[in-house]
Amino acid sequence: MEREHFSKIYDTELNEIREKLLEMGGKVEVMIDNAMKSLVERDSKLAEQTIAYDHEINHLEVEIDELCLQVLATRQPAARDLRFLTLALKIVTDLERIGDQCAAIAKRAKELNQEPPLKPYIDLPRMAQAASVMVREALDAFVRGDDSLAIKVCEDDQFVDDLNEQIQRELLTFMIEDPATITRAIKVNYISKCLERIADHATNVAEMVIFMVKGKDIRHTIA
Amino acid sequence: MEREHFSKIYDTELNEIREKLLEMGGKVEVMIDNAMKSLVERDSKLAEQTIAYDHEINHLEVEIDELCLQVLATRQPAARDLRFLTLALKIVTDLERIGDQCAAIAKRAKELNQEPPLKPYIDLPRMAQAASVMVREALDAFVRGDDSLAIKVCEDDQFVDDLNEQIQRELLTFMIEDPATITRAIKVNYISKCLERIADHATNVAEMVIFMVKGKDIRHTIA
Repeated sequence: MEREHFSKIYDTELNEIREKLLEMGGKVEVMIDNAMKSLVERDSKLAEQTIAYDHEINHLEVEIDELCLQVLATRQPAARDLRFLTLALKIVTDLERIGDQCAAIAKRAKELNQEPPLKPYIDLPRMAQAASVMVREALDAFVRGDDSLAIKVCEDDQFVDDLNEQIQRELLTFMIEDPATITRAIKVNYISKCLERIADHATNVAEMVIFMVKGKDIRHTIA
Repeated sequence: MEREHFSKIYDTELNEIREKLLEMGGKVEVMIDNAMKSLVERDSKLAEQTIAYDHEINHLEVEIDELCLQVLATRQPAARDLRFLTLALKIVTDLERIGDQCAAIAKRAKELNQEPPLKPYIDLPRMAQAASVMVREALDAFVRGDDSLAIKVCEDDQFVDDLNEQIQRELLTFMIEDPATITRAIKVNYISKCLERIADHATNVAEMVIFMVKGKDIRHTIA
């Protein structure tokens, strides 16, 4: 009975970490959406809220780190649980840095909102949408231990990379044709790169999930 | 005696992780230097070597991760050692991504070497030098548990950020005055941002070291 009691508490702790990670992922998704909305709808108030919201993400990072350390210290987990915990530690870092990217996007959006619009944003919201789905699916793959979903995330990264390159080419044409657009185009370009980095973070998470499930490391083998 | 034997093996394992991390850090420093050299000296062969070298860094990441997992699984470390191991797991990820940034710099250098030089590079090598020192000092701070050195690294980040902003302003002037420079200026700008991100990774490591030494989290409290 003693043992059963122990294992129940232990399961509760692991579940708490799982849920906190999903909560953090959900908040990061909201940040991506709001950062993009603040740009597309020229809503500088929302941009400011998004920048401020980053603190919540940072707070969750510290909290989940501490939970993982506590379980590692008191439960001496082995095998699968150990991999889960050490990857949770790495994944929160990726999520936190996605939050940083969203704040960076919102800062640029605020600046861009003070100038005349450069062009209607069509591809950027598509990129943001794809990156957001990648983040959600990477985390779902982690908590479910679903390597097929993780592989899908890795594959989807190409779509975001392609959109980023397309946007960069388009902006280059803008700048060469009309140097008055350069300052704004550089900022839009920066936002595109932030979205690409968000997708990269999701891909990093997905690669680690495949590692966890398969028990071997496929990082650095996927092109 | 049995116990003494156990603790000796355990110390050896922790030392191995420490040494592997320093080895990885040393290789990353070489990558930063070579990436910059390939740009400044217009050496595309060195750029290619730097891109290829990234595999070694990736390989070390996987190796150190496995060592940490092994010690966590077999030695059930507590307190200080547990923090050391979980931070080692996070730090290798930062080092690996610094390697990615160096490869990205080398790729842009290769492209830039095929076009006429834009301008003599003065600030970029200074940035690279500063970022490289930050990486070394952050790792030294980690293996020695030296929080004063870690604080210095966090403070030095401002210098790199300032240089990056200065370079961006300068490149903007170039582009506006002569649109023929835009394509090249964007690439140089990208390199400057890569260096800034390398310094950010070093700062992340340093913040985690302060966390390890002080036992409390100062991440997200330093501006």
